Amino acid sequence: MDLTFSQVNITGGFLFDKQNMNRGKTIHAVYDRFVETGRFGALECKWTEGCTDILPPHYFWDSDVAKWMEAAAYLIAKKPNKDLEAKIEAAIDSIEKNQLPDGYFNSYYLVHKDMKHFSNRDHHELYCAGHLMEAAVAYYYATGKDRFLKIMEKYAALIHRIFIVEDSADFSTPGHEEIEIALLRMYTCTKNELYLDMCRHFVLKRGICPKDSGKQIPDFANDKHSQTDKQAYEMESAVGHTVRACYFYAAMAELAHQTGDEKLMASCRRLFDDITSRKMYITGGIGSTHVGEAFTIPYDLPTETSYAETCAAIALMFFSQRMLEAEAKGIYADTVERILYNAMMSGVSISEDSFFYENVLEINLFNEEKNNSTKHKERFPINQRVRVFGCSCCPPNLNRTLASLERYAYHTRDDVFYVDQYCESEYQEGNTSVRQMTEYPLNGDVVISFQGVKKAALRIPSWCDHFAINAPYTMKDGYAYIENPTEIILHMDMAAKLIGANEEVNACANKAALMYGPVLYCVEGIDNNVNLHRLYFSQNLNAKASFSEFFRLNSIEVDGFLRKTSDRLYANLSENFENHRIKFIPYYAYANRGKSDMLVWLNYR
Amino acid sequence: MDLTFSQVNITGGFLFDKQNMNRGKTIHAVYDRFVETGRFGALECKWTEGCTDILPPHYFWDSDVAKWMEAAAYLIAKKPNKDLEAKIEAAIDSIEKNQLPDGYFNSYYLVHKDMKHFSNRDHHELYCAGHLMEAAVAYYYATGKDRFLKIMEKYAALIHRIFIVEDSADFSTPGHEEIEIALLRMYTCTKNELYLDMCRHFVLKRGICPKDSGKQIPDFANDKHSQTDKQAYEMESAVGHTVRACYFYAAMAELAHQTGDEKLMASCRRLFDDITSRKMYITGGIGSTHVGEAFTIPYDLPTETSYAETCAAIALMFFSQRMLEAEAKGIYADTVERILYNAMMSGVSISEDSFFYENVLEINLFNEEKNNSTKHKERFPINQRVRVFGCSCCPPNLNRTLASLERYAYHTRDDVFYVDQYCESEYQEGNTSVRQMTEYPLNGDVVISFQGVKKAALRIPSWCDHFAINAPYTMKDGYAYIENPTEIILHMDMAAKLIGANEEVNACANKAALMYGPVLYCVEGIDNNVNLHRLYFSQNLNAKASFSEFFRLNSIEVDGFLRKTSDRLYANLSENFENHRIKFIPYYAYANRGKSDMLVWLNYR
Repeated sequence: MDLTFSQVNITGGFLFDKQNMNRGKTIHAVYDRFVETGRFGALECKWTEGCTDILPPHYFWDSDVAKWMEAAAYLIAKKPNKDLEAKIEAAIDSIEKNQLPDGYFNSYYLVHKDMKHFSNRDHHELYCAGHLMEAAVAYYYATGKDRFLKIMEKYAALIHRIFIVEDSADFSTPGHEEIEIALLRMYTCTKNELYLDMCRHFVLKRGICPKDSGKQIPDFANDKHSQTDKQAYEMESAVGHTVRACYFYAAMAELAHQTGDEKLMASCRRLFDDITSRKMYITGGIGSTHVGEAFTIPYDLPTETSYAETCAAIALMFFSQRMLEAEAKGIYADTVERILYNAMMSGVSISEDSFFYENVLEINLFNEEKNNSTKHKERFPINQRVRVFGCSCCPPNLNRTLASLERYAYHTRDDVFYVDQYCESEYQEGNTSVRQMTEYPLNGDVVISFQGVKKAALRIPSWCDHFAINAPYTMKDGYAYIENPTEIILHMDMAAKLIGANEEVNACANKAALMYGPVLYCVEGIDNNVNLHRLYFSQNLNAKASFSEFFRLNSIEVDGFLRKTSDRLYANLSENFENHRIKFIPYYAYANRGKSDMLVWLNYR
Repeated sequence: MDLTFSQVNITGGFLFDKQNMNRGKTIHAVYDRFVETGRFGALECKWTEGCTDILPPHYFWDSDVAKWMEAAAYLIAKKPNKDLEAKIEAAIDSIEKNQLPDGYFNSYYLVHKDMKHFSNRDHHELYCAGHLMEAAVAYYYATGKDRFLKIMEKYAALIHRIFIVEDSADFSTPGHEEIEIALLRMYTCTKNELYLDMCRHFVLKRGICPKDSGKQIPDFANDKHSQTDKQAYEMESAVGHTVRACYFYAAMAELAHQTGDEKLMASCRRLFDDITSRKMYITGGIGSTHVGEAFTIPYDLPTETSYAETCAAIALMFFSQRMLEAEAKGIYADTVERILYNAMMSGVSISEDSFFYENVLEINLFNEEKNNSTKHKERFPINQRVRVFGCSCCPPNLNRTLASLERYAYHTRDDVFYVDQYCESEYQEGNTSVRQMTEYPLNGDVVISFQGVKKAALRIPSWCDHFAINAPYTMKDGYAYIENPTEIILHMDMAAKLIGANEEVNACANKAALMYGPVLYCVEGIDNNVNLHRLYFSQNLNAKASFSEFFRLNSIEVDGFLRKTSDRLYANLSENFENHRIKFIPYYAYANRGKSDMLVWLNYR
């Protein structure tokens, strides 16, 4: 993999556990589901009209398989695995065999022979192509084998001809972005400027092509939904489908960085600020409505019907990390961290084989009883993880992200070695080596041994109110810069504390959430046998954190109150508060012990 | 009209104003809309397949017209009006001309000649018949003319034959209840025991007939939706479509009272308690979801998506009043009062010609901007009243209820004269006369002169914490009983105060509402130029009430706070509160000055 992936190993702690989970079980669970549901078989392109023994492929199935292949490639890169490699090779065999002479490959279109290629902007052909490219690059880095990369270079050449040379497709830029990121990875890997040009085309032509506007978009969407309402330079606020948006913004950021396009970077800053200052859940999740899986309006962050798709959290991680690599500001790495421990990690079960698509901030089981008078139901997100979805984009996205967490730990720029995320890990490249020892996020103590580093920069997380470093440092943009570091001891005060939301977030008015370092906590009915909305924080938390083997993080108890009122439905305002110890678990681990109510934002007094 | 309607006149004050509004404008506005939309014309039964100059009738249109006719009859009863009478007569002409020889009349089925009568349980034939019967009774009482009553007696005889003698319809009891109430009114008017028997049939057979269960119900509903899941004696909790439910429960209560059926009355008590202790908004509105316009589960009372249909509020008023007449408990009249000044009155605009179907407890105008990425929208209730609906049941229901408020002021039982509602009014029957002078609900001072009354009972509303009476009294079930009353002076302390909801109502946790006597208040954006969720009550209200000509009630200012936080989206919990004077208006009058945010439940500190 490009960047720091190959130089870093995570060697212990929570993220190490989660990577082992992915390697040991989750990657196989997703593979098995994708075989069962016909996704791998679909690559053979054998389905025909009337055929009943195999399912027709969906037009985004190639992307599911590709993300799994990319994930498996990362795992192989870190530890050879014949089984995973054979599975990838078998998939490549199918792709190679069925690739058309002109380079085209899409299992949906290859079995629907009468459908014209690149005629429907929302049929995800370029999205699937992008994911296959990312997988091909990852596999090439992992194994040195270039068969898959060549296949995708051939396909890329076709896309170049159709979209840029001939402009003969029925649309100019894809309905669902992703190929932009992929082309940058192709460029980084091959150094072929063609891919940079193609990326620039897809990024900068978006929003200004007559062939794209108001057409070939699903019925529920308009131009905003696919970020086609404005040209990248003009974008002011994050709009539309959150995954599409953040894949695109990630590509914008990387392109701006690679090409020194300061005007494009200014757009990225505006978009990042709009998301993280107005449209992001405390978990790092984004997407306030299931309608279009979309951003809505500033401060609209409902908790029970939050969408906060796992893929969208990952996409925002991508965007944030690329911003960080473009300009070393702690806020970007803070956002990666927020997502990593919360909105992303909640996507996978502790049983390691089940997944959330939507990650809510509140579960009321009574919604299952609600509408008991009618067949039609109000829509509520599922409250238990499942093994596979009809649109199962999130599970392999988790696979590939967990398998490449190394990318987020460090980055380098000029002479500076940036420590972005805290985890037991090591970095080795040439004469430079770094060894980080810590139990983070169980506590805020970190020891880092540097060799061959002229200047180190340690991120001081925005959650951290007090810290100490055993060496002189200067602060800039959330990083502590240290000259000629050797053995650096960083202490960050880490304790349970209450976080409030901006006054404009109606859903959080009068409420607080519990965080411990970067880890968000929640209450579940299973631990607190009352209506969770009756629980109040005390301002004096008197918190007790204890390590839980099950959660691989602390669970926390705090002092609080249980609110009591008159038995009447409405009465003169009067209430009393019983002292009540409240039990919290890490948010990411909600819904792992059967169905339960869950709540992040509690009242306080 | 039956009961006390004809003996009572409301002579001044808020309810008098609203009755004048109805007489002077609203009744005509509804008539005009119903003419424009073809509802009156449909009675002529001229539409045929392929006809384009007139609209096909809807299967519930007869009920819209019937409710209007009933309302007009009440107005005529109080004050002769040739215009209204001519309009009613014209409608009766059409009905008479098109009634089939067997007595059948339904404008929808009469133009859809190939559809079998009484074959679809949810096609509202008995519902429409019921409303026509209620109108016929009201018109007979108002004018002494019995043509319409005879028409409906003929139709009732057909229904008796089909449903009871022959049992030849495709269902046994109606999908939408209403005829049960109507048959009791026919019985009261004609003393024909047949109608009481028919009512008993429709009430007691419901929920136990094989022909009704799981069939002929719209796709979105199940047996609970139409209260067909249990027999009346077994009913434990209020379920399903709120209007259907409360029309039925009203009939149950009146039937139980009329026939001394104590077991049925016990069901009514359970249902009333379930609604008013667990499923009613503070406005008196009911219906927590638009899905099926239905009751949901206890304490599920969302504010922004409340359904709280105007018709349902009226239906609960009917149920409550019939419970009150069966047993004199203040809670029943309290509920009538709560609905009257709040959930019902909000249904009509101050401009007197526009209507709400859904009456919410919170408006956030940003919902109009929400989903700006998609064509499909999340559903939010309308935030401005409209002149007519596709299903325009509520406007004529308001017409008839406003035109018959006299019914709710007093009732008599044995020797006791009950004063149920406070309003400037007079009662005259034989040697008994009562004159009530008050500005209620502007204040709690009431003077009542009694002549020929052996025992009076004055309701002491549940909102009232302190009261005084200038005569000896004994309290029972919310009524103060006074022997041989003459000039009684009742003083009820009335001041703005904060009301809280039961601890199990999640939507109201940590929040309070402002009431002044029976009148609920709300804040609107137009008066308070901030995000209303940032406003906090102070426990020391320092309230100032001032009469508003526009609202015909007081508007109120109270001391409160404006919450301020960090500008960041999430930060260590910290906030400060600026003193802020908050302006309230009567809830019923929300959305009368253009589009505005609105909120009933505010935070407090």
